[in-house]
Amino acid sequence: MHFENHNWMHIEAYLKTDDRAILVLGACEQHGYLSLLTDVRIPMALADEAARQSGVVVAPPLNFGCSPFFLDYPGTISLRLPTLLHVADDILRSLHGAGFRRVLILNGHGGNSPVKLHLEELVNELPDLQLRWYAWWTSQSVAAIAKKYGLEAEHGNWLEAFPFTTVAELPGEGKPMIDPGAAILGKAATRHLYADGACGGPYQADPAVMDEMFAACLADVLKLLKFG
Amino acid sequence: MHFENHNWMHIEAYLKTDDRAILVLGACEQHGYLSLLTDVRIPMALADEAARQSGVVVAPPLNFGCSPFFLDYPGTISLRLPTLLHVADDILRSLHGAGFRRVLILNGHGGNSPVKLHLEELVNELPDLQLRWYAWWTSQSVAAIAKKYGLEAEHGNWLEAFPFTTVAELPGEGKPMIDPGAAILGKAATRHLYADGACGGPYQADPAVMDEMFAACLADVLKLLKFG
Amino acid sequence: MHFENHNWMHIEAYLKTDDRAILVLGACEQHGYLSLLTDVRIPMALADEAARQSGVVVAPPLNFGCSPFFLDYPGTISLRLPTLLHVADDILRSLHGAGFRRVLILNGHGGNSPVKLHLEELVNELPDLQLRWYAWWTSQSVAAIAKKYGLEAEHGNWLEAFPFTTVAELPGEGKPMIDPGAAILGKAATRHLYADGACGGPYQADPAVMDEMFAACLADVLKLLKFG
Amino acid sequence: MHFENHNWMHIEAYLKTDDRAILVLGACEQHGYLSLLTDVRIPMALADEAARQSGVVVAPPLNFGCSPFFLDYPGTISLRLPTLLHVADDILRSLHGAGFRRVLILNGHGGNSPVKLHLEELVNELPDLQLRWYAWWTSQSVAAIAKKYGLEAEHGNWLEAFPFTTVAELPGEGKPMIDPGAAILGKAATRHLYADGACGGPYQADPAVMDEMFAACLADVLKLLKFG
Amino acid sequence: MHFENHNWMHIEAYLKTDDRAILVLGACEQHGYLSLLTDVRIPMALADEAARQSGVVVAPPLNFGCSPFFLDYPGTISLRLPTLLHVADDILRSLHGAGFRRVLILNGHGGNSPVKLHLEELVNELPDLQLRWYAWWTSQSVAAIAKKYGLEAEHGNWLEAFPFTTVAELPGEGKPMIDPGAAILGKAATRHLYADGACGGPYQADPAVMDEMFAACLADVLKLLKFG
Amino acid sequence: MHFENHNWMHIEAYLKTDDRAILVLGACEQHGYLSLLTDVRIPMALADEAARQSGVVVAPPLNFGCSPFFLDYPGTISLRLPTLLHVADDILRSLHGAGFRRVLILNGHGGNSPVKLHLEELVNELPDLQLRWYAWWTSQSVAAIAKKYGLEAEHGNWLEAFPFTTVAELPGEGKPMIDPGAAILGKAATRHLYADGACGGPYQADPAVMDEMFAACLADVLKLLKFG
Repeated sequence: MHFENHNWMHIEAYLKTDDRAILVLGACEQHGYLSLLTDVRIPMALADEAARQSGVVVAPPLNFGCSPFFLDYPGTISLRLPTLLHVADDILRSLHGAGFRRVLILNGHGGNSPVKLHLEELVNELPDLQLRWYAWWTSQSVAAIAKKYGLEAEHGNWLEAFPFTTVAELPGEGKPMIDPGAAILGKAATRHLYADGACGGPYQADPAVMDEMFAACLADVLKLLKFG
Repeated sequence: MHFENHNWMHIEAYLKTDDRAILVLGACEQHGYLSLLTDVRIPMALADEAARQSGVVVAPPLNFGCSPFFLDYPGTISLRLPTLLHVADDILRSLHGAGFRRVLILNGHGGNSPVKLHLEELVNELPDLQLRWYAWWTSQSVAAIAKKYGLEAEHGNWLEAFPFTTVAELPGEGKPMIDPGAAILGKAATRHLYADGACGGPYQADPAVMDEMFAACLADVLKLLKFG
Repeated sequence: MHFENHNWMHIEAYLKTDDRAILVLGACEQHGYLSLLTDVRIPMALADEAARQSGVVVAPPLNFGCSPFFLDYPGTISLRLPTLLHVADDILRSLHGAGFRRVLILNGHGGNSPVKLHLEELVNELPDLQLRWYAWWTSQSVAAIAKKYGLEAEHGNWLEAFPFTTVAELPGEGKPMIDPGAAILGKAATRHLYADGACGGPYQADPAVMDEMFAACLADVLKLLKFG
Repeated sequence: MHFENHNWMHIEAYLKTDDRAILVLGACEQHGYLSLLTDVRIPMALADEAARQSGVVVAPPLNFGCSPFFLDYPGTISLRLPTLLHVADDILRSLHGAGFRRVLILNGHGGNSPVKLHLEELVNELPDLQLRWYAWWTSQSVAAIAKKYGLEAEHGNWLEAFPFTTVAELPGEGKPMIDPGAAILGKAATRHLYADGACGGPYQADPAVMDEMFAACLADVLKLLKFG
Repeated sequence: MHFENHNWMHIEAYLKTDDRAILVLGACEQHGYLSLLTDVRIPMALADEAARQSGVVVAPPLNFGCSPFFLDYPGTISLRLPTLLHVADDILRSLHGAGFRRVLILNGHGGNSPVKLHLEELVNELPDLQLRWYAWWTSQSVAAIAKKYGLEAEHGNWLEAFPFTTVAELPGEGKPMIDPGAAILGKAATRHLYADGACGGPYQADPAVMDEMFAACLADVLKLLKFG
Repeated sequence: MHFENHNWMHIEAYLKTDDRAILVLGACEQHGYLSLLTDVRIPMALADEAARQSGVVVAPPLNFGCSPFFLDYPGTISLRLPTLLHVADDILRSLHGAGFRRVLILNGHGGNSPVKLHLEELVNELPDLQLRWYAWWTSQSVAAIAKKYGLEAEHGNWLEAFPFTTVAELPGEGKPMIDPGAAILGKAATRHLYADGACGGPYQADPAVMDEMFAACLADVLKLLKFG
């Protein structure tokens, strides 16, 4: 069940028996050879399937995140961090005002992490609002699968190369992992350093690995939706 | 061509021969019996077809707009107006930074109109940025077709009832046009006044009318994409 | 009764028997040959007379509005839109805090329209605050009179050419209506397009038309002051 | 010469021979028995006369200032301090954009003092902008006259009791000077402490004293307008 | 008792018997030959001793204030005024949330004065919060001692030249008092005018004068801590 | 060399031969049995020693960070995230304006991490500004030492228990590691979950381990100060 396929009467009816929602925070930014919307598509794919299995309603995704470092890659659209914080705040206040009390936020983009911190203020103000935050690529599930297959989970190119994020042929050969070090690089140095935009390692993994990873993340999401 | 189906290299290549983009500003708000995403779907449908015919690239839509008056209808998600202004500003700065110089904004929601005014500041600051603003339902094309068929264009229920926005059976009978008068109602009085959320008039028009209207709006969009 | 001719004790006494106020939102911007304060003077003239007839108190006018498009015309002073929204919010919170519960906002400037939307948030927060918004030049009264005399109401030069806004000799001959089209022009292109600043049509109408129009608007205002 | 009596062509012509302007920052707040607009009327009276003698143009006054402490006195309308700072910034940017390079700010209200500090940032950014700040009641001229007549200048009731600010009969007898001490009182305690709103001392001075004081302030203003 | 030497359990215990705290607002800005942290060190010295004598707890100092005029002197770090206002607001909300109800703010820097005004809003919102504001150099105690020794209190160089703020040899000879006049100078003109950064007068006073002054200010602080 | 022990002339002289500075971002928040200023003291200790060895100047620390989750522990003072971002921005702009071009930020608090992201915008705007960010407890050095001694690095109680942060006797026995899970808890649930405020594990480590860790971090800092 997705907001976009329903009208307000449906949501009102839904709220009589459930108070949960899924919210996807994404980004529109360079992902090397992958889709500019990779950070929307992955959490949305999880949301779609989790919604199908659990019946929880899915709000429309936020298609933009905070990506100032990638602004020299055309196609990156970045919200300034204060803007993003206000957007997240407004969305969650609207959901709370409508009667949602438990919201699982599926974040698809590392640059959105400050939202998690900022929402502590909202929970301080609205103590009956239960929020869960899931950033799939930081999960123990993903770490375990990466380890199992001898892959580097963190920012590996392969990690986000799902069939539904792949919009161009991927290089067969990987590239060395890039170490950004301690610098706050800015967009120019970032592009110079990352070149094709990928962070290093193989550009793709075996489809079975990707499936296993997706399934594990989906299991995480379904568990989180119990708000235990 | 849509951002989401492409990577940054594609956009960089595109920018070598074109500097135009389409941006959809939508809303997630009650639309009576229609989809909560009606204000995204209509301009996005225009964008899709215009992109197909013109080759101009389409940025991801902003799924949220400013709808404080509808916050008592569950499913409405509203950005506060200052938030929305900053979002629009950030998106257009990103596009400009990437090299886009002509952007057609397809606005799907009346509550987003202040963005148009606010963007004057951006153009003052970035004089090489050409912006066009199209709010399909306020166009002369729509007015002409409505008049031709004896329909009320402004906020008529039927106006947005396309097959792709209809998510429930529509009432056969219309309802009287609601006159909000001069009041700034607030969400509670708005819900009381609008009841099912529709603004009045018939809930649907003949499919041929809708097709004609869509075609006329599409023609407008294609013309605007020439940035004459 | 105007704030400026009274002290706080008078207002406190007034509030024992009435909770209404009139607030004028104006602008300081180019109006072709007319006064830079045209958008203050017209609603203030209505307020003055309405106050005289109704006894409702008039707050001091906001002399500045949002006019970024006219910034290349010397004499235009524009508040950025977020600034304007905060100003309106602060003024109305002050009035509400003092005990005013019904405020009629007489807006004199099109660029201030977003305030109306923004104030929905305030009413959501303060449900006992009743607000009415009147932008005289968009009224049905004005439309009817313009039509009756074969004049174009919208942005016609003549429309604002009252004796009390006329500060220079007006051209005898009108000019063609300017069509800004769909562009968000920015200040430079706006000045280029509008040249003398007028929007087109005759620069003045028969004094009797102006009187009739003023009387009709005043009747509107008096009716709105009943907060029916 | 005042903005309100002129159109943009007049201002453009003026700017060919002069780049000075006077801007009045006022307040709408309780002043005991005096007009709620006292803090506008006094600097505006100075501006009027200074303009007459010098030919410098006068911008429209800001009728609202920052007066949170007086919000329990009906009739006080207070801008929050960040709002006020943005307003002042916007106004001066507009004036600078139009070609004004020397602006004398006549401040009528103590609560607006932070604007002076904030505008340092603007001058840092726009080094060709010369600003002068005059708060008449803090001037050495006023101090000298008060001393000469054995009056307490600072916040004395009499100090602002000009014929053009007096809107009610003034008490014959003064009251003891109120010492707010070191507390940040808030509106409730402020009203409790100030009662009728006056700060203490006699409620009026001899008209000749007032005339002398006004003349002295006017001389200050005229001198400052030389931007020596 | 200082926050930094204690943990939260200590503060919780403290709050069972007392609800007072001291907060130092300072600055990091040029002070001529004196320490860049002069405006922290003086109020902190007062706080240290007052805490020792009274047992009132001292929060960590804010090491930065609003000093835009001194930004051309290396070592000055200035918060923009809106930033500073938000910082002060956040700190005091945190203290109030923890149970503090009486806070004495020892301000060390003239550029922080707008905070006092801004905090009126906070007291309006949280009426059970008692705030006192002490800017030692504006006190009657300091004025009296300066007068007694024939020194100019206001911005005299000597005034802040305590042993604990002196980080370089001080000139033996004073310099003429600088009169900034009515200009909002901006950083470049300010540095030009103030040269070595001192405001004029002797660079140091007799140690006994400094001791007497410190003792008098300390007595003020101890009295204010009674929140009478 | 620290700002506080120097005047502007010293800094100006310093800038003739060096353009580096160290900035400490801290927090004032509960740390279990440790000092409320733990997150200032640790990076400041590193800064002190690194300054001594390298001669790089140290700016005053920011004593407050973003800690909304700990606001139910008395003594926690939290800046709202947008406030913190503006503070960091203002500080770095001031340093850049003075001529500093390479700044090493020693962050002592996890809740300040969003600053790193936000400063990307600043570097985008000021490309000649080189920034390095070091959060000692996330360093590979710390991870390696923790592993070597079989300790859990992340948020272990012992990790921050230096002699100079210990302000009370520490429990001899550790407590189980607390798993906050995926929830955005808010302050009330956070206090309930963390009880004494510690995150779990032993409350202290062998002094030799602490020394080794400090030395390793110091080496990191000294290396980063080369801005290689």
